[in-house]
Amino acid sequence: MMSLTDPAVTDAAHAEALDAADPLAGYRDRFAIVDPELVYLDGNSLGRLPRATAARLRDVTEREWAGELIGAWDHWLDLPLQVGDRIARAVVGARNGEVVVSDSTTVNFYKLAHAALDARPDRRVIVTDRANFPTDRYVLEGLAARRSVAIRWLDPDPIDGPQPADVAAALDRDVALLTLSHVNYRSAAIADLPGITALAHDAGALTLWDLSHAAGSVPVDLDASGADLAVGCTYKFLNAGPGAPAWLYVRAGLQDELRNPIQGWFGQRDQFAMGQGYDPTPGIRSWLTGTPVIPAVAAVDEGVAMIEDAGMDAIRAKGVALTAYAVDLHEAWLAPIGFALGSPRDAARRGAHVAVRHPEARPHNDALIASGVITDFREPDSIRLGLSPLTTRFRDVRTGIERLRDLATGRRGDGGHP
Amino acid sequence: MMSLTDPAVTDAAHAEALDAADPLAGYRDRFAIVDPELVYLDGNSLGRLPRATAARLRDVTEREWAGELIGAWDHWLDLPLQVGDRIARAVVGARNGEVVVSDSTTVNFYKLAHAALDARPDRRVIVTDRANFPTDRYVLEGLAARRSVAIRWLDPDPIDGPQPADVAAALDRDVALLTLSHVNYRSAAIADLPGITALAHDAGALTLWDLSHAAGSVPVDLDASGADLAVGCTYKFLNAGPGAPAWLYVRAGLQDELRNPIQGWFGQRDQFAMGQGYDPTPGIRSWLTGTPVIPAVAAVDEGVAMIEDAGMDAIRAKGVALTAYAVDLHEAWLAPIGFALGSPRDAARRGAHVAVRHPEARPHNDALIASGVITDFREPDSIRLGLSPLTTRFRDVRTGIERLRDLATGRRGDGGHP
Repeated sequence: MMSLTDPAVTDAAHAEALDAADPLAGYRDRFAIVDPELVYLDGNSLGRLPRATAARLRDVTEREWAGELIGAWDHWLDLPLQVGDRIARAVVGARNGEVVVSDSTTVNFYKLAHAALDARPDRRVIVTDRANFPTDRYVLEGLAARRSVAIRWLDPDPIDGPQPADVAAALDRDVALLTLSHVNYRSAAIADLPGITALAHDAGALTLWDLSHAAGSVPVDLDASGADLAVGCTYKFLNAGPGAPAWLYVRAGLQDELRNPIQGWFGQRDQFAMGQGYDPTPGIRSWLTGTPVIPAVAAVDEGVAMIEDAGMDAIRAKGVALTAYAVDLHEAWLAPIGFALGSPRDAARRGAHVAVRHPEARPHNDALIASGVITDFREPDSIRLGLSPLTTRFRDVRTGIERLRDLATGRRGDGGHP
Repeated sequence: MMSLTDPAVTDAAHAEALDAADPLAGYRDRFAIVDPELVYLDGNSLGRLPRATAARLRDVTEREWAGELIGAWDHWLDLPLQVGDRIARAVVGARNGEVVVSDSTTVNFYKLAHAALDARPDRRVIVTDRANFPTDRYVLEGLAARRSVAIRWLDPDPIDGPQPADVAAALDRDVALLTLSHVNYRSAAIADLPGITALAHDAGALTLWDLSHAAGSVPVDLDASGADLAVGCTYKFLNAGPGAPAWLYVRAGLQDELRNPIQGWFGQRDQFAMGQGYDPTPGIRSWLTGTPVIPAVAAVDEGVAMIEDAGMDAIRAKGVALTAYAVDLHEAWLAPIGFALGSPRDAARRGAHVAVRHPEARPHNDALIASGVITDFREPDSIRLGLSPLTTRFRDVRTGIERLRDLATGRRGDGGHP
């Protein structure tokens, strides 16, 4: 079995050699793999279940909730902060007291964007980009309409995403808030977080970064970059389960200045005094709102613990190797039959997924899923291959792309190879 | 063993007879009871774990999440609406399409109060009461301060809560929103939901009811009462677990008029087109924001299914019987040693908990918990006895109040009885 184009890259033995040399290969065994034949290339939509999480969820439910009952709140109350600290240190380059687990990404994004606009009342412009994740755009539209603030839309290259020069051209003294995704949900393009943050600060604007596709796949150093605010989800590369609570970051130096617009009892000083008058508790805890979903926060804890154990540098190295391999296979097998790469070619500018574009992307994606290779279609013409570093093997990448080639050329099932 | 005051009520045999005649007695076996000696009178803070919920959570985690992976979203997407429909029909007297499970009570309360103010832009007053649950008051303070809206505070009797006459006196054409709890979190006083709603409507105001302490303990008929908006938590009498998502109700006739201020992607029409411009999907789904915490929504489903099975009328009848018994025991054992009833004496005006007041309530509550009777202290001087109809036995009520009497009189442990 040999490829005519590049035997070293397309040969099954190459994938096996990459898997054999993978220092993170053992992590896959820490996940509950129900169907070992399934090729799951969608860990960037919903990460797999860690075995430790299944055990932790049983423990939280059957021992803590059933057994400790209301008394468990003595330790549950601090859990969103403890897990936040773990995210801060292990995942996003922040300090204790700068991150808390709370609500959904959408609600956290709303809280922080609202607070940023409150903190810059004389400025009437938000800058973001048309390719940003939908919920961020929709939240901003709602805030802008209710406050007579304008959105200045960047319209960057659909593959490379917003560049510092694009952002610089949109910044002026009217801009209250600049908000972008660090890793684009479709193309996986990485935005220059430190560089763009510095430009925003030069203009006096606050920055809010959506790290949903970055957290757990690409190292981030929020403190060193001077970023003001950030949010991210936990059900992608942090493997915390469907709809697990999100996290938010508020730089320590901003915590006295910004205020949570959703003034809930979990942000109140001396919460159980239940007194008159909202008086926010100091620090990151004031960004909590209502009662946290404790079992799901515990699932975040387990997911992040595994990231911490593996280390973001090793995770990033594998993410780069996986996507580079996917790009090589795309060049060998997909480009010749009408596909185009929908992600940056430079691995340094790419997160842990790869988009491949094709006019028939939707039916090809449907056929892939039906065949047992799980990918994502994204409008208008992308198939996303999510290559979650802790669970995806190089052989999975090869099988998935080979299958896509076979489906696209009508050869699926005939066993032939070019 | 005989009471000097009322042998029929205080005798252990009376409790046993009440338990033997209880048509809901068998429901207790459907819950995971880890310590059968523990007397748990705090199901109104955190309901117990239903066994079916433990099984459902394992299934959602270990079969759906681990096995179906991203494909499970095909059915997960509708779960918050399906469970909302179940709450609508079984718990709060509403129709399909009027209730959805989403976010926390705090965030839902924020969304609905915000939307109500948006819908009455020429009115500048919110009416609520000083004894309302803290998170509701704090959220309103935040909204009011940012919109130059005033809060007109009712200061009702601390036991009986706001009466229609109190509310009528506070209503005028400036009032955009009237919001109260249906069952007060401290005294358990039931507010006249239909009567007060009618008064608010006469003044042209919208109504927002917090049913956190009512849902699953007191029958509510939102549709018949004409109520506009409602929220409630699920971790009390609906037994859905710590921080399980809350629900919200928007009367069908208002759904075209009111708009979710947190414009998230789960409220977007054709969500996965991920298109430009927020365009809310019709109906109650538009009140979703970010990704729902699916395992916790499933836990709500199980909790509500049990309420549906038992029926709200039977649950209410037992709640009345339990609290009436607690009041009788208070009269026999606690009133003579300096306690005072902190809840309405008329069972028809009381939810499923009873507050007893004492100057030393806090240390007595601490001692009760240390002795294995779990109650709640509420500032300034109340011990709350939460009598969850599906899990609390009459013998638990008797043991708890006898224990309190013994602790308060220094007789705990001597085995003596009056």
